[in-house]
Amino acid sequence: MVELFSEDRSDLKVAVIGGGTGSFTLLSSLKDYTEQIAALVNMADDGGSTGVLRDELGALPPGDIRQCLVALSRVPEMRDLFNYRFDEGSMKGHAFGNIFLAALEKMTGDFAKGVETASEILNIIGIVEPITLTNVTLAMQGRDKKVVRGEYQISDLDFKKNKKPIMWLEPEAEANPKAITAIAQADIVIIAPGNLYGSLAPALLVPGIGEALSKSKAMKVYVCNLVTKPGQTDGYSVTDFADEVERMAGYKFLDAVLFNTEKPDDLLLEKYAKQGEIGVNLDENKLKKAHYIAVGANLVSGKIWKNSNSSDPIGASRTLIRHDPKVTIRAIMELYDYVGNL
Amino acid sequence: MVELFSEDRSDLKVAVIGGGTGSFTLLSSLKDYTEQIAALVNMADDGGSTGVLRDELGALPPGDIRQCLVALSRVPEMRDLFNYRFDEGSMKGHAFGNIFLAALEKMTGDFAKGVETASEILNIIGIVEPITLTNVTLAMQGRDKKVVRGEYQISDLDFKKNKKPIMWLEPEAEANPKAITAIAQADIVIIAPGNLYGSLAPALLVPGIGEALSKSKAMKVYVCNLVTKPGQTDGYSVTDFADEVERMAGYKFLDAVLFNTEKPDDLLLEKYAKQGEIGVNLDENKLKKAHYIAVGANLVSGKIWKNSNSSDPIGASRTLIRHDPKVTIRAIMELYDYVGNL
Repeated sequence: MVELFSEDRSDLKVAVIGGGTGSFTLLSSLKDYTEQIAALVNMADDGGSTGVLRDELGALPPGDIRQCLVALSRVPEMRDLFNYRFDEGSMKGHAFGNIFLAALEKMTGDFAKGVETASEILNIIGIVEPITLTNVTLAMQGRDKKVVRGEYQISDLDFKKNKKPIMWLEPEAEANPKAITAIAQADIVIIAPGNLYGSLAPALLVPGIGEALSKSKAMKVYVCNLVTKPGQTDGYSVTDFADEVERMAGYKFLDAVLFNTEKPDDLLLEKYAKQGEIGVNLDENKLKKAHYIAVGANLVSGKIWKNSNSSDPIGASRTLIRHDPKVTIRAIMELYDYVGNL
Repeated sequence: MVELFSEDRSDLKVAVIGGGTGSFTLLSSLKDYTEQIAALVNMADDGGSTGVLRDELGALPPGDIRQCLVALSRVPEMRDLFNYRFDEGSMKGHAFGNIFLAALEKMTGDFAKGVETASEILNIIGIVEPITLTNVTLAMQGRDKKVVRGEYQISDLDFKKNKKPIMWLEPEAEANPKAITAIAQADIVIIAPGNLYGSLAPALLVPGIGEALSKSKAMKVYVCNLVTKPGQTDGYSVTDFADEVERMAGYKFLDAVLFNTEKPDDLLLEKYAKQGEIGVNLDENKLKKAHYIAVGANLVSGKIWKNSNSSDPIGASRTLIRHDPKVTIRAIMELYDYVGNL
């Protein structure tokens, strides 16, 4: 593999679209290459600490924003503080950063201003922008016509009967103009791995985002999930994931899809197979015919991710098999060079 | 009155001992004269938001510390954020700054470190130091031998039968060495106005503080309360207040006492007389014989202080007649010049 750390990538503008953990992982390594980063964050999270703050205060969802801010922060102590989760008392389960963002929003009436203030305190590399500032709820309807509302309620939809459901946002979301600009100006747009229907869909469903992706001259790459999500994406192959990403955006915008070829460590698989998570199928024949470049690599992190905070129900259900951030970002850079030389 | 703002007071080192609102008021104006300020804060508060955080998390009391940090902050937005109080949900009644300090303490296990981090974020003038880092409870016993514990429980002691009760801290507190140093190095030590038994006593009762005050070459001035506190200091005169301050410290350390000579605005008095707060008596004969210089001036603020936050039980019970910060600090500066020229 070519050594890229000696190369100067600081001119590169990269936008990362996604939710919490997937974006967090990629941003942590991306910042070693360039400081021109825009993390564009879905705003439909309503589980765990975030869900409680939305319910109780009518706040916009801070959780995923917090994870991106922390990933890009230059100040270790503030990173720890923002991720600190109270483990007792009436604030039990709340991450401090979520409370911080909710307080600023309630005080100023302006979520974006709160994110800006947090960005200053955390002294972040690049910018973090909500993909919309509309207080949206994710809604979905399957073939049985039953409508389910709320990201955290997705599991109420029987996906066996309702594969690839219709999804939309309520009320209709207005795209954050800064997100549109970031996509337009980027050299690379990464669709981060994450919960397909819970995290990526609510970002891609925002009107204007799909069109901006389609028009942008950036290389648009989707980093496919390593494992399927039980009850939602069971049996999905890489092309299934990619197709759904494009269906949500309403445009065939992808230039490249990066997928994992390596089976995660047996021990890890065995340990977490109980959760019903299975490696994503490589449907090689379909991939060959795809309109995007499909690139496989060993993207699995050897590191076992601890899920230390069981008081957060969302956190407790997150997958423990992760992308290796360094390897994944390096693969994207190589892909960018390759596409540029075509 | 001499114009002091044209004089250079930036060499002056001033320590202010007290609790929340009284210290807040004086610090807000003191910082116009010098940046060499040490706010030394009592640590026995256990009411309101602070009380809940102590109960639920075992945290040291953040409320008074927060008020001093805010008074000395150079960043208006962070001042507003630290004072922002949630008005709904499970965090209802909590000031954001209290949550901030509690989170840092829980995370690092070090309250002083948390205060330091908050001081940086708020970019404060001078320093704010807990007078002790021991997790103390205020205890008191009257003539009826009944022991009452907790600052917020003071009203359980029948002060009519138990005037000037014995007070102590449990467990025995260790003075914060930085507080001792600040008192030793100060040119002026101000005992701020405030709840005599609830705020000043727990600061002055910390072993070592009285001795430090007695040994310090600073001018030590007590700014006497404007009104008495119903059920605790009813009928107290200026010398009663000053005597109690010295009894708590265990030393006759005062060089000067500054008291108010002006009756607060009739409208204001009428409005708040219902709360049982009455102007402090000037026992002029006793004052003439006192071992300290007693100076009277019109110290009452013409500003009506709104008590906007009734969700904080402590806040809701605070007096609404306040010292004029500018006039009070100017009087202290004149007193310092006068004492220096004796």
